[in-house]
Amino acid sequence: MKIIIIGLGLIGGSIAKTLSSSKDYEIFAFDSDQNSIRNALDNQSIQGSLHSLDDLGNSKYEDSLVIISTPPGVTADILRSLNFLFNTSVTITDTTSTKTSLNKILQEFNFPENFLFSHPVAGSHLSGEKNSATDLFNRKSTILSYHGSAASQHVDRVTSLWDALGSKVTILDADLHDQIFAYSSHLPHVAAYALLNTLKGLEQDKLSDFSGGGLGEFLRLVSSSPEMWADIFTMNEKNIAIAIDDLIKSLDLLKDKIGKDPNSLQTFLGELKDFKESNY
Amino acid sequence: MKIIIIGLGLIGGSIAKTLSSSKDYEIFAFDSDQNSIRNALDNQSIQGSLHSLDDLGNSKYEDSLVIISTPPGVTADILRSLNFLFNTSVTITDTTSTKTSLNKILQEFNFPENFLFSHPVAGSHLSGEKNSATDLFNRKSTILSYHGSAASQHVDRVTSLWDALGSKVTILDADLHDQIFAYSSHLPHVAAYALLNTLKGLEQDKLSDFSGGGLGEFLRLVSSSPEMWADIFTMNEKNIAIAIDDLIKSLDLLKDKIGKDPNSLQTFLGELKDFKESNY
Repeated sequence: MKIIIIGLGLIGGSIAKTLSSSKDYEIFAFDSDQNSIRNALDNQSIQGSLHSLDDLGNSKYEDSLVIISTPPGVTADILRSLNFLFNTSVTITDTTSTKTSLNKILQEFNFPENFLFSHPVAGSHLSGEKNSATDLFNRKSTILSYHGSAASQHVDRVTSLWDALGSKVTILDADLHDQIFAYSSHLPHVAAYALLNTLKGLEQDKLSDFSGGGLGEFLRLVSSSPEMWADIFTMNEKNIAIAIDDLIKSLDLLKDKIGKDPNSLQTFLGELKDFKESNY
Repeated sequence: MKIIIIGLGLIGGSIAKTLSSSKDYEIFAFDSDQNSIRNALDNQSIQGSLHSLDDLGNSKYEDSLVIISTPPGVTADILRSLNFLFNTSVTITDTTSTKTSLNKILQEFNFPENFLFSHPVAGSHLSGEKNSATDLFNRKSTILSYHGSAASQHVDRVTSLWDALGSKVTILDADLHDQIFAYSSHLPHVAAYALLNTLKGLEQDKLSDFSGGGLGEFLRLVSSSPEMWADIFTMNEKNIAIAIDDLIKSLDLLKDKIGKDPNSLQTFLGELKDFKESNY
């Protein structure tokens, strides 16, 4: 099967690198950054590159699988520009971590039967093709979201892709996906940025000698790409705003409990620890 | 030199274990948990144990160094009960991570010249003598805080202790210590507990498949002892309340920015990342 990767960054590059060891796939890529393309050609993780997305209309790419793995903010434009492929034999998926705003574009096109959302829950604070790796998706979750209109051959093709990459596939409604990730992934990042903003406001600007490790683990979340996180926060704005309000309520609750009975505070913290140990 | 460790947990046990390899120290311990005492005797990390803190009045312990390394909430009581040693040839220090409330006790006793605060910025989410280790303090910071009344031989003795444990010693005013740690250490823990409380309130109670690692790093902070954290939060209540309010302001600021221009959001996140990389 032919695979066309649009956006050869950490995710796209890792898909190419992992699948290139199998004879089952012929892999092509499109990226405006020619260094990434050249690097992937040199490593033989791709067999060729596209000059333009219009090339995908060529009969050579019939029945292929197109993966959009660009930064989230660009994905909407790419998706829209690929509308000439909607309801053809080509299968299209993405790798974006927010779905609601992309889903609106699909709705404009009456939910093409050959598009499915993919969200590989894998990544690194490092980005770019040069940091891609063959084990990025192995034993990690990938969430698929698709409309009832999705045709089974396209569902099977995308499912097989993530199986081949070693990923554990879960299916989730697109809206529920964004609600869940607002809490499980976006909110921890918001909290880390907010904590850093708080520290930045202090007179003492270097507190790492005074943190005992906990601070470092927290702040590592801020090492990821600001472009990617600005896109994710913007695309999932409504759910994240609700999650931030919930977090503020919990902070106020803790502040209140800290001022009261130490024993009931200890019980409260102990219950949270128990909850963590049963669920995380 | 004789060292007497009151409270043979992770910190006290690690002090004993590290110093026991040197001929310069004779190490005794007091702990209500006889298993910890027996374990440390078996490992030869201590040479003997005390039956009661009153034993410290014995001339045998003249010129010794007493280290209180009990849970923070117990330290205040121990400190008060050791008042018969104040202004003697015995040196006394602690290992607690909040100082203001203990400082009030010292004030009642007109700041004895033989007491200094120590805060080894080292730890683990594991606790107890059984998890103690010889490398716990190596290359870690230890903060000393002491009143102007502290006599130089006691300052030297405590400084030498942390030097021998491989720690990097910094001196900080007790009140400033608590203000700084409210942000650098206590606030990240408050945020982790608050995030967990937020997740606990959701219908979906297991989000670990949907987090990509960031959540796990965050929540690891909640693995520490609830007893210790309830004590720390309570003892540093006022500073932590201010820090929580600051964090809430930063969360509100971020929420506001997420609803506005994506480019300025990206710039804001990029500046925070730059600040982190220069300072942490």
